[in-house]
Amino acid sequence: MTARTLQGFMELLPQEQLVFNHLKSVIAHTYELFGYAPLDTPVLELAEVLLSKSGGETEKQIYEFKKGDTDLAMRFDLTVPLAKYTALYANDLTFPFKRYQIGKVYRGERPQKGRFREFYQCDIDVIDRDNLDIVYDAELPAVIYTIFSQLKLPSFKIYINNRKLLSGYLEALGIADKTTDVLRLVDKIKKLPEEVFLAELKDLGLSEDQNNQLLKFIKINGLNNEIIAKLKELNINNQNFNDGLNELKTVVEQAIAFGVPADNIQIDLSITRGLDYYTGTVYETFFDDYPQFGSVCSGGRYDNLSSVFSNQKLPGVGISIGLTRLFDQLKDNNLLQFPALTPNKALIITQAAEFDSTAAQLASQLRQNDIAADVMHRNCKFKKKMEYANKIGVPYLIIIGEEEAQSGMFAVKNMTSGEQTKLPKEDIIKLLA
Amino acid sequence: MTARTLQGFMELLPQEQLVFNHLKSVIAHTYELFGYAPLDTPVLELAEVLLSKSGGETEKQIYEFKKGDTDLAMRFDLTVPLAKYTALYANDLTFPFKRYQIGKVYRGERPQKGRFREFYQCDIDVIDRDNLDIVYDAELPAVIYTIFSQLKLPSFKIYINNRKLLSGYLEALGIADKTTDVLRLVDKIKKLPEEVFLAELKDLGLSEDQNNQLLKFIKINGLNNEIIAKLKELNINNQNFNDGLNELKTVVEQAIAFGVPADNIQIDLSITRGLDYYTGTVYETFFDDYPQFGSVCSGGRYDNLSSVFSNQKLPGVGISIGLTRLFDQLKDNNLLQFPALTPNKALIITQAAEFDSTAAQLASQLRQNDIAADVMHRNCKFKKKMEYANKIGVPYLIIIGEEEAQSGMFAVKNMTSGEQTKLPKEDIIKLLA
Repeated sequence: MTARTLQGFMELLPQEQLVFNHLKSVIAHTYELFGYAPLDTPVLELAEVLLSKSGGETEKQIYEFKKGDTDLAMRFDLTVPLAKYTALYANDLTFPFKRYQIGKVYRGERPQKGRFREFYQCDIDVIDRDNLDIVYDAELPAVIYTIFSQLKLPSFKIYINNRKLLSGYLEALGIADKTTDVLRLVDKIKKLPEEVFLAELKDLGLSEDQNNQLLKFIKINGLNNEIIAKLKELNINNQNFNDGLNELKTVVEQAIAFGVPADNIQIDLSITRGLDYYTGTVYETFFDDYPQFGSVCSGGRYDNLSSVFSNQKLPGVGISIGLTRLFDQLKDNNLLQFPALTPNKALIITQAAEFDSTAAQLASQLRQNDIAADVMHRNCKFKKKMEYANKIGVPYLIIIGEEEAQSGMFAVKNMTSGEQTKLPKEDIIKLLA
Repeated sequence: MTARTLQGFMELLPQEQLVFNHLKSVIAHTYELFGYAPLDTPVLELAEVLLSKSGGETEKQIYEFKKGDTDLAMRFDLTVPLAKYTALYANDLTFPFKRYQIGKVYRGERPQKGRFREFYQCDIDVIDRDNLDIVYDAELPAVIYTIFSQLKLPSFKIYINNRKLLSGYLEALGIADKTTDVLRLVDKIKKLPEEVFLAELKDLGLSEDQNNQLLKFIKINGLNNEIIAKLKELNINNQNFNDGLNELKTVVEQAIAFGVPADNIQIDLSITRGLDYYTGTVYETFFDDYPQFGSVCSGGRYDNLSSVFSNQKLPGVGISIGLTRLFDQLKDNNLLQFPALTPNKALIITQAAEFDSTAAQLASQLRQNDIAADVMHRNCKFKKKMEYANKIGVPYLIIIGEEEAQSGMFAVKNMTSGEQTKLPKEDIIKLLA
């Protein structure tokens, strides 16, 4: 039988996997630094639970099947499982409930370059009962900024908006009934040629004057405080609009207090996120020099997470990194610039099997000092062992022969510089720690 | 709709999840200390790939379904995916190939207490081409010992045997044709009453004399070197037997050189592992005072990992911790004795919303010093904020009011001792780092 992996399922070689895991662990660690607790829900759920809130597209893509009498499905995101979890355990949770989840999700899309059927999502959300403080909307950009700068990713901006602004503006224009359609269309503005966008806007039945006002509105630009000032100057007498403006102002100011440089957060009135789901703040993140990657980290505020499962009002705000796709894009563009990651700090090789115990003891002491070390055991020529050392790319090589075993002074070779010295155990530990 | 989680799928509250993740991360970190590289294969594979090597039981339990024209299945272990992976990427891998994988696997078993349909396996394996040095068989008990002692688990023993011993012994008794059946039966000896075991042994068609010899053989006990000596004294002239004896002796000696205390590794000639798959060393691990947990960590040596997928001979040795079940058993028996794990080191609360920026800046500085910190934002009474602090169980509480915001001296409360002091930022960082 031919060994095969399904199309659209990422599988990495060890060297790449180390890099992938480094990204994943910086994300997890940063989420924890900001006080988010880990969560791990099942990959499989009752189909009716997962499909409770989904639209037509998702339903077509979902991996769904029957086992016995039960309709099962593989999760297609981490939000529906969170909605279920929060409703199910609401009495045992402490609110505001801050959780992160990093896990694989599944979508049976048509496979194509850059699209995956199994991919990691890295989600954080804060959920509270009845009301969730707006300051949490400012915390999320700070989390994302910390991760992206820690990972030395290319220069990026977190684009931010508040859906209440555009909704309120449409209300003021007297076309509140078109809100859902207009917000969905505006979401596509960056992907569509302007004439197509305008034609589709016309199709929605807006007058030419309304179209022009709308277009002018979403194109308001400048520095964050300039945009805020221009929006104020519009003098729009609409509750929704003014709530949105106040929230947006607070979020940008507080995000900066949380440590996000002003250069990395930018109000963009054309960001709406297509989903009706979002009710206030929305985020998208783009690399300045790689707009073709699309948004690498998106999210927003929602009024009621668990409405399908619970009568409690549970507002939340969340953001998610699509890690598998991001990794794939960074790799393809040679943007993963880390110091070479190796599974080991040191490899120990022996000149004959009789020194195996000495090697084992040395390795054991290194590990007790939290130094990752490997011993290569193979009844082969010394040259073959050197080849192995070069191939796995280990920073230090320790060689044990007759003399070393007797004297307790081990030959240590720096594989980068080629330099070789003889050191006692204690000095090796100091060197590698 | 009612929020429900499928039966047999573990879902934890945040406090428990922190403990689970602590176990998982100690396992991963120790695997890495021993030079194993991480691997992450898909949860979904072609059904024919996963079923290539399975027996009838597995086939019944597997989650299998069709999507479009493709027969898909969810992995039921991490070994078959490893066999596929190694065959598929053999030309890109460096041998000996040491990999670990921690991931969820799926078995649609009848749900019952302590059995899970989705559970974590934590596997390590070393694979080489043509021949794999016996010393790797000794490395695995050292890895397991390191993990179990690090986690302060109850006293345990790794039981070890070599299938060549019993196979060789059966050959010497002239009943080589019964080897598979006898080894499968011996595997069950600890679960069966002796009379049932003897009756089943009889059913296999062995003479009473052969039965008695066999029983006497597998009951040989004592210290490891005593057992080795007794086996030598049997003077059995069989290649298989003597190879097994030499291997077992080497493995025990080297495991001790790798740092496993003699008390934690014990030869037991009745350990055979049911699977035909294993060809030499076999391991099982039991807690001394909780034999009812069954083996919490098992594995062994196999001659040819990828025989279904490849013509290359790829011998390996591996061991696996069934983490979900182990965690469940430890929890049920109150054996998870960790210092309270909390998502945060410090929680910052403010006496009014006007101090939010001060709180945000302080939190940001703590996080820059790798201190997990949370700010509670909620427009509520101070008392409510104190309740939250008590409920999430944070070690330190930092309170910011008028005076603190002006003086830069923050009230820090040790939540364990109740002691409260006023400290400047720098001293808080020192205290919490």
